[in-house]
Amino acid sequence: MRYDKNWENLYFPDFTPYAALDPEIGLDLVSADPFAPDGSIPDFIKEELKSAIDRNLLHYIDGESTKELYPALKKKLKEYNRLDVNPDTEILLTPGSAFGLFLAIRICINPNSDEEVINFDPSFAENLNNVIMMGAKNVFYTTKEDDNYQFDVEALECLVTPKTRCVVLTHPNNPTGTVYTKENLQRLAKFIKKHNLMLIVDQCFERNIYDGTEYVTIATLPGMRDHTITVFGPSKDMGLTGVRIGYLVAPKEFISKMHLATANYVGTINSFVPPALAAAYNNPSYVDEWNRIFSYRRKKASKILNQVPNVHCNLPQAGFCLWLDVRKLGATSKQILTYLVEHAQVAVGDGAWFGKKGEGFLRIMFCRYKNDEVFFEAIDRIASGLRKYQGLAQED
Amino acid sequence: MRYDKNWENLYFPDFTPYAALDPEIGLDLVSADPFAPDGSIPDFIKEELKSAIDRNLLHYIDGESTKELYPALKKKLKEYNRLDVNPDTEILLTPGSAFGLFLAIRICINPNSDEEVINFDPSFAENLNNVIMMGAKNVFYTTKEDDNYQFDVEALECLVTPKTRCVVLTHPNNPTGTVYTKENLQRLAKFIKKHNLMLIVDQCFERNIYDGTEYVTIATLPGMRDHTITVFGPSKDMGLTGVRIGYLVAPKEFISKMHLATANYVGTINSFVPPALAAAYNNPSYVDEWNRIFSYRRKKASKILNQVPNVHCNLPQAGFCLWLDVRKLGATSKQILTYLVEHAQVAVGDGAWFGKKGEGFLRIMFCRYKNDEVFFEAIDRIASGLRKYQGLAQED
Repeated sequence: MRYDKNWENLYFPDFTPYAALDPEIGLDLVSADPFAPDGSIPDFIKEELKSAIDRNLLHYIDGESTKELYPALKKKLKEYNRLDVNPDTEILLTPGSAFGLFLAIRICINPNSDEEVINFDPSFAENLNNVIMMGAKNVFYTTKEDDNYQFDVEALECLVTPKTRCVVLTHPNNPTGTVYTKENLQRLAKFIKKHNLMLIVDQCFERNIYDGTEYVTIATLPGMRDHTITVFGPSKDMGLTGVRIGYLVAPKEFISKMHLATANYVGTINSFVPPALAAAYNNPSYVDEWNRIFSYRRKKASKILNQVPNVHCNLPQAGFCLWLDVRKLGATSKQILTYLVEHAQVAVGDGAWFGKKGEGFLRIMFCRYKNDEVFFEAIDRIASGLRKYQGLAQED
Repeated sequence: MRYDKNWENLYFPDFTPYAALDPEIGLDLVSADPFAPDGSIPDFIKEELKSAIDRNLLHYIDGESTKELYPALKKKLKEYNRLDVNPDTEILLTPGSAFGLFLAIRICINPNSDEEVINFDPSFAENLNNVIMMGAKNVFYTTKEDDNYQFDVEALECLVTPKTRCVVLTHPNNPTGTVYTKENLQRLAKFIKKHNLMLIVDQCFERNIYDGTEYVTIATLPGMRDHTITVFGPSKDMGLTGVRIGYLVAPKEFISKMHLATANYVGTINSFVPPALAAAYNNPSYVDEWNRIFSYRRKKASKILNQVPNVHCNLPQAGFCLWLDVRKLGATSKQILTYLVEHAQVAVGDGAWFGKKGEGFLRIMFCRYKNDEVFFEAIDRIASGLRKYQGLAQED
């Protein structure tokens, strides 16, 4: 077999084995989805999907399929993101945000040309993998727990070379849940413009912000529209994981090229999904309700886990994950999570999937469970499993 | 903007303007879909989609979503294609066949390394574009009308170099509707094995075969399983254009790598579609009924168009397109189709989208129309438009 050598050495090639514990015997905090507290999708969204099927929106996507969606996206981008866009020229629909992120990186990169992408470590592994598969180079900017995983633009300056093409920002960050401050984003904007780079921003978690934290869409900052590709993933923040729809906002020359490339890469998106996304964005209050539950789980679970000696759990400002530091336990993330699967019947995510600096951390999703009781059962299993691993008695 | 230079010079960058004549004023024979004679999707498939929504199959795809599909694919591949596969290791689900084709070519190619792909001319333009976007080289094998667009393996031999990685075969061909003979496929199989190449076969039109023509899945020929990636597109032959599902069959080492790459490129497929595809494959007789209508349209339309002086229309053995030779009219395809849009209010496909040898041809879809009457109205418009272009009276 003579496949592309770039395809070796990807992150999380062994994701699958830990992604689905039998529900009869254990709890899975790795692959929890959709991002609804009880795994449900609101009925009004389901009805929109069924209505689209009845309307025979089963052709290649066309104006009939998207007539509700484009106005809804324009309104949402204006009201939620403070971005005023022309849907005809500045939005591209994608089959999920994963493809949007691939495409955004791909348009900046000439494969196998030693070009460089600045990625944060830790951050969303698919962005790292896409760079690897293109034969480009991931240049890592390491964020630190002490700074609450914020970044320092002066340190970023040291990473720029003539080969740098773009910076990828997962905002809020996945896995750390960090919301970057407005001041930091303003400094980043200056940096991007100064070096004439593109900024790719993954805003998949943009609507799951806790404790009233200020959230800024960086494309709204002066001069940044021409330098930003913003990728939106309502699979995540609107809880629509299974319906595969996303979109991106970019300068119109990029949209035009990416539109053509999308036709070749994937054809089109699912044609009966757009009305459902329009309905979701036009009635997004169900997410506020979910956020209240997520926020409660996040705080309580973080507190429980911080009572375990020698580990530290963050209190994320956004998103769906806890980021648990287990470095003091003297083992790799993989060893700890294998122990938890075998001895506590609970599966958690390997921090090493999210970059080199993720080693020694575990990612714990707090989104989908039948109810809070089931979720906290899982957290209790992790807590007692981590105690047991250290030879400590319960509630030591 | 510093996007990849490979993205220049793609085929059909101007596809859109001719793709949608207003139904009030004209007829569109370019983008006709779904591939059902009257544009409908069978009710039992719609019910499966709705039932999957009610079953809350709206998560990332999982075993519950695919439990009917994998057995249905195994049965279909065994009965229709004579391929005995292990669904766990030899099938990959894709969001439509377009992505399957991209992925199949991509896994064979190291981008920007001057590697070569043998593509037929004319053939499906997305395969040509994918090669271009990867910075690989399309090496064209020209098929000829005189040979009914079959190929000659001895001529293929002249195209092989040490940089050749794969051959892409659209079987049946799009746009010519050619079904390659068993003898020719056997010769091709020997050629592929001799040069240790991969063969990528697009079987999107495999079920729309007319006049009892023998159809062979080349992966069934001796020794070809290890050398073939077969891409299936039920969007086409099962009439499911809008639901974005396809699959490919390949050696298990390829499936394993492509599975991981798919997770990075597009995440997953739509989770509530698999049961509908299973239902379609388990009850495929509706396609036989469609084929009778397609075959009738194809024959009658070909005859009508062949009555126009100085043009020649093929009688396709398969698929959804007529391939009309207008080279004797002394103008480009683009000029002729622009004339037809303006003077006959009918839009047809530009043959030049399908390779250099497609110049001077028009592609005419005979699949979706409200009914036969509307379709033949379009054919009559084309026929009289082509007469008018030549300054000929009606029925000259």
